[in-house]
Amino acid sequence: MSLAELVLEGNIRAAARLMRDIDDCRPQAIDELKQLYSRTGNAYIIGITGPPGAGKSTLVDQLTASFRTRGKKVGVVAIDPTSPFTGGAILGDRIRMNRHSCDEGVFIRSLATRGALGGLSRSTSDVALVMDALGMDIVIIETVGVGQDEVDIVKEAHTTCVVMVPGLGDDIQAIKAGILEIGDIFVVNKADRDGADRTARELSTMLEMRQATAGQWNPQVMKTEAQRGTGIEELTDEILAHRDSLLSSGSISNFLRERNQRHFMDVLRDTLFKKALAYMATDDTLERVVTGMGERRTDPYSAVEELVSKLMPV
Amino acid sequence: MSLAELVLEGNIRAAARLMRDIDDCRPQAIDELKQLYSRTGNAYIIGITGPPGAGKSTLVDQLTASFRTRGKKVGVVAIDPTSPFTGGAILGDRIRMNRHSCDEGVFIRSLATRGALGGLSRSTSDVALVMDALGMDIVIIETVGVGQDEVDIVKEAHTTCVVMVPGLGDDIQAIKAGILEIGDIFVVNKADRDGADRTARELSTMLEMRQATAGQWNPQVMKTEAQRGTGIEELTDEILAHRDSLLSSGSISNFLRERNQRHFMDVLRDTLFKKALAYMATDDTLERVVTGMGERRTDPYSAVEELVSKLMPV
Repeated sequence: MSLAELVLEGNIRAAARLMRDIDDCRPQAIDELKQLYSRTGNAYIIGITGPPGAGKSTLVDQLTASFRTRGKKVGVVAIDPTSPFTGGAILGDRIRMNRHSCDEGVFIRSLATRGALGGLSRSTSDVALVMDALGMDIVIIETVGVGQDEVDIVKEAHTTCVVMVPGLGDDIQAIKAGILEIGDIFVVNKADRDGADRTARELSTMLEMRQATAGQWNPQVMKTEAQRGTGIEELTDEILAHRDSLLSSGSISNFLRERNQRHFMDVLRDTLFKKALAYMATDDTLERVVTGMGERRTDPYSAVEELVSKLMPV
Repeated sequence: MSLAELVLEGNIRAAARLMRDIDDCRPQAIDELKQLYSRTGNAYIIGITGPPGAGKSTLVDQLTASFRTRGKKVGVVAIDPTSPFTGGAILGDRIRMNRHSCDEGVFIRSLATRGALGGLSRSTSDVALVMDALGMDIVIIETVGVGQDEVDIVKEAHTTCVVMVPGLGDDIQAIKAGILEIGDIFVVNKADRDGADRTARELSTMLEMRQATAGQWNPQVMKTEAQRGTGIEELTDEILAHRDSLLSSGSISNFLRERNQRHFMDVLRDTLFKKALAYMATDDTLERVVTGMGERRTDPYSAVEELVSKLMPV
């Protein structure tokens, strides 16, 4: 049996193997994904994003427990900040959520923020697809919400929760404003800390200033203490309420269309570039261009034009 | 005269105009960059990166003043976290470094983290190139050091300063480990805060654990209070010491080679994708594929293979 067939039967080891192949950019992973694709589209994807130190991992751990209690299988894709030189995720799968480690209904996978630009959003889509095929009802994508990459990843999610904490300094204000538009639900975590009420009020005020459209989802600010489990059931209920709203308003179809288009574009960008790299491996273009640039004889723009007109004659 | 010629004469308004064209992805900007390219490669690029709340903007402001005192012209490219929906940088040029606003030897430009993946690193290179052509001796690139995009941007810099502050919470540890390899100099800012000495000691210990190679640059941990200007001259001296080390050890040539190769690759990836988009604008491929994906009849991997074999027959 192919890996894809095994994954569709719920084989966890096959899924782990396929994800590793995706991570390593092995070409055969693509063939497996092709086989899987028609059987996906069933998982509900939740994005959890926020600045470092907001307690996102603990919150994801609690949400996982909450959905398990409600009988749902839960996949978690944690995007970890990586060492750009040594590769590899810093917070590995192993130190995450030990308490779910014996639960067959939970599948956790860390993805490192390494590799080519644009690759992260692509491999997150692919890994989420495998979890979907494996039969996970809920897939939680956790990411540090600062860079553009991270914001793009969150667009995968049906429901995006933006997690804030009180007192993370001034720059946070800017980021807060920046991610205001992508949040379906806002969470002030560590709500026992000084300033939690103020942070929640500020967020509410900022949200109210946005023009509310009739019939549109109205994001709420929730308070949690993930460490103690406080506010988690309410957050789970709110996520499900957002899902109901997406379905009943019909806005789900636009969302899915955009997500599919983005996925197609990601694969396209990646494939074009890889084919060009493979072509360059067979001749001396790269060497010639880079040496010419060093001597300022060649500029990269003209060099690329020449190469692309050869590679893509259309 | 072309914009490129005006920029090479030191015309600030022409530079601002060209940067706007780059930001808007106007094709004519490429022609200007081609003209500029042979006259660039003179500016020394300094990267300033660190988590939100580390006081990077203030530090950049002080470094700018310090280099001005030493008779250097300074360009600043500040990468601001952006609203992914509304576009536009949140902290605009206007609220940055007002005190340099009347100084012709300082040129400040904010870049928003929007647009296509991979685009940020590309436009940062291009904007830095314009500042170089304009005659800036020093170009400071300031970025929030969390995402992969941001890390890639920092690779542009001859000297990278990683800025930390005491007491930003646990996740910071992970990021600290992640950016340990990219720092040439480490700065503990807000050094008057509780825990500053401990943060500096921890950083030093982590740096000592890395294997030191004979003749290689040995990153130091500096303490600053950017608000008061404390430690700035020492930091400037350390940056210049790192430059001397790059030049005398000869490692500059490898660095420049890698940077040129990366720039070429960025332009290539971008150009290939744009040409494919232009092609798709003329037929119904996109519509057909996205609709097929929605019905799970078409998978994106097979659709891309088909398209790419048509576009790139080589």
